[in-house]
Amino acid sequence: MIYDLIIIGNGPAGLSAGLYGARSNLKTLIIGAQLGGTMLDAFLIENYPGIEEISGTELAQKLKKQVEKLNGEIIEDAVEKIQKKSDSFEIFTNSNKKYQSKALILALGTQHRKLNVPGEEKLMGRGVSYCATCDSPFFKDKTDAVVGGGDSAVKAAMLAAQHSKKVYILVRGEKLTCEPLNEKNCKKNPKIEIIYKVNVKEIKGETKVESVLLDNNKELKVGGMFVEIGLAPVSALANELKLELDERKFIKVDSSQRTNIPLVYAAGDISNAMGGFKQILTAAAQGAIAATSAFRDLKHPK
Amino acid sequence: MIYDLIIIGNGPAGLSAGLYGARSNLKTLIIGAQLGGTMLDAFLIENYPGIEEISGTELAQKLKKQVEKLNGEIIEDAVEKIQKKSDSFEIFTNSNKKYQSKALILALGTQHRKLNVPGEEKLMGRGVSYCATCDSPFFKDKTDAVVGGGDSAVKAAMLAAQHSKKVYILVRGEKLTCEPLNEKNCKKNPKIEIIYKVNVKEIKGETKVESVLLDNNKELKVGGMFVEIGLAPVSALANELKLELDERKFIKVDSSQRTNIPLVYAAGDISNAMGGFKQILTAAAQGAIAATSAFRDLKHPK
Repeated sequence: MIYDLIIIGNGPAGLSAGLYGARSNLKTLIIGAQLGGTMLDAFLIENYPGIEEISGTELAQKLKKQVEKLNGEIIEDAVEKIQKKSDSFEIFTNSNKKYQSKALILALGTQHRKLNVPGEEKLMGRGVSYCATCDSPFFKDKTDAVVGGGDSAVKAAMLAAQHSKKVYILVRGEKLTCEPLNEKNCKKNPKIEIIYKVNVKEIKGETKVESVLLDNNKELKVGGMFVEIGLAPVSALANELKLELDERKFIKVDSSQRTNIPLVYAAGDISNAMGGFKQILTAAAQGAIAATSAFRDLKHPK
Repeated sequence: MIYDLIIIGNGPAGLSAGLYGARSNLKTLIIGAQLGGTMLDAFLIENYPGIEEISGTELAQKLKKQVEKLNGEIIEDAVEKIQKKSDSFEIFTNSNKKYQSKALILALGTQHRKLNVPGEEKLMGRGVSYCATCDSPFFKDKTDAVVGGGDSAVKAAMLAAQHSKKVYILVRGEKLTCEPLNEKNCKKNPKIEIIYKVNVKEIKGETKVESVLLDNNKELKVGGMFVEIGLAPVSALANELKLELDERKFIKVDSSQRTNIPLVYAAGDISNAMGGFKQILTAAAQGAIAATSAFRDLKHPK
C-alpha cells in the first residue's frame, strides 16, 4: 500500500496540508508525535482570522476533524528515518512501523532553543520548562522566571502570572521585542517584574529548581523557569534527505513550497518561506500550498 | 490626521492585514468598495483550516468584528486616486473624502474576466452574471449556462442547480480543471450537463438573456449566463503608483509582501506572492505578513 502523500508533522502546517491533500483526493497520511505541534503552546489565539478566540488545543482538534471528515488519516507516532527509493519514500517510525508514499511534506516545525547553562538539563521537567501553557499551573503561588524578551516570553509571563505570586522576565537586551499590545498588557500586570540586560549563568537546585544565578551575580529564588528564547528548526530528517537548508538551517523552498528534491515539500516553521514569518496562519497557508503543489506534481509528472 | 496604515481592499487579505495592523497598535484604516470582496462569491467554504463550514459573507463579518474589536476602522468606499507625497500617501475616494497614511497596503484583489462577445455588455445584470452566489436565486426553474471549467465554474453550476431546472457547463477544453472533489460532486448532479470543446460566440436576447450561441453553431435556450473564466488583477491604482507588475499584471512583491516602492505593500490576489496560489487562507496570510512588514518598516525606518 503506497500513499500519495505523507505529511510528517501535525501542527498547523501539517494539518492544513492534510486538509488540502485529502480535498484533492490524494490518499493522505499525517504522522506526527503530538497532535497540534507548537500550536499547543498557545493558550489563547486571538489573531487567527475568522476565529475570535480559541486555544491551540481546540484549534488542533478542529483541524483534525476537518482532515478526518475527508478521509485523511492521522497517526500519532514519531518518524525516525526516511529512505528515498526510486519512485517512493519509505518512512520508519518510532513504533517500528513502515509507510510508503509517492510524495512527502516535511512540516516538523521547530523546537525550543535551550540556554545551555549548568542545571538546565538536570532540572528539565523539575521546574525548567519550555512550555508555559503546559506547565505553568504546576507552579501555583510560587515565584517564576521567564527567560526571553519576545512574544512567547511575554505571553508565558502573563500566563505564569495567573498562577504564580510573582514572575520575573529576564531580558538579554535593553527592551522587549514583542508585539506592542503584548508589551502594554505585560507592563500593566503588577505581578510581573522585567529585568533587562541579564543572562542566565546557572539554574540551581537538587531535585527541583530553587534559584537562578544571573551574570550580574544576583541570585533569584524561583520555583519555575520558563525558557522562551526562540526556536530552531527540526532538521535531522531534512539532512537525511539532503535537502538544501539556508544559513539558519531552515529548509529552502520556492514560492510553491518545493524543496530541491522532487516530490519533497516543506511547510510551516521548518521552511524559510514567507520571509520567515511564523504564525499559525502562515504555517497553514504553507501547508495548503505544499499539498496543492504535491497534487499538481503527481498529476503532471515531469 | 495621518493614519499609520491604510489598507485598500476589504477582502480576506485586506481584513487580515487590518487585524494584524491593529494588533500591532498601528492606527489602521481599511477602505474597500464592498466588505468581503471576492469572498462574497463563496457560497460555502469548506477548506478554511479551523472552520468546518462557513459562507463567504459570514466569514467577512467575523473578520470585520475582529478588526473593529481592536479599534481598526473599516469604511465602505471606493478609492479613486492615490498620490505619493514626500512622507505620506494621500488617498481620494469616490465620495470625495481624502485620507492620509504613512504606509499603504494594496489588497484590491481581482475582477472577473469577461468573454468579450456580442450581447455580454448589453445583457449584464439582465441574465449575464459574474457571481453565481449573488444572482443564481433569480433564475429559479430556468435553464442556466455556466462558462468555464475551473473550480469557480463548477461551484457556480452546483449552486445554480439548486435553483434552476437544468444547468449547462460550457468548457473550452477537453476536461474540467477543478479540484477532483468538486468534479466528482458536479458529475453526480443530474441537473448538470457538461459540454466540452465549445466557445461562446454570442449571447442573445433583447431585454434579458434568451439564448447562447456556441461556436459549433448550436444555440441553447437559457435564462441565466454565469461567466466564470477566471480573474484579472485590479491594477489601475498600482499603475498610478508605478508599482512593478509581473507579466500577467500582478503586483511583484518579495517574500515579506514589499513592493518596489518603500512603505507600499501588496497582499492577496492582486500580488504575485505564494506561487500565485489564490485561496482565502493564502490571501489572509499575505495580509498578515504585509501588515507586519509595514509595522517593522515604520518602527525601523531605513
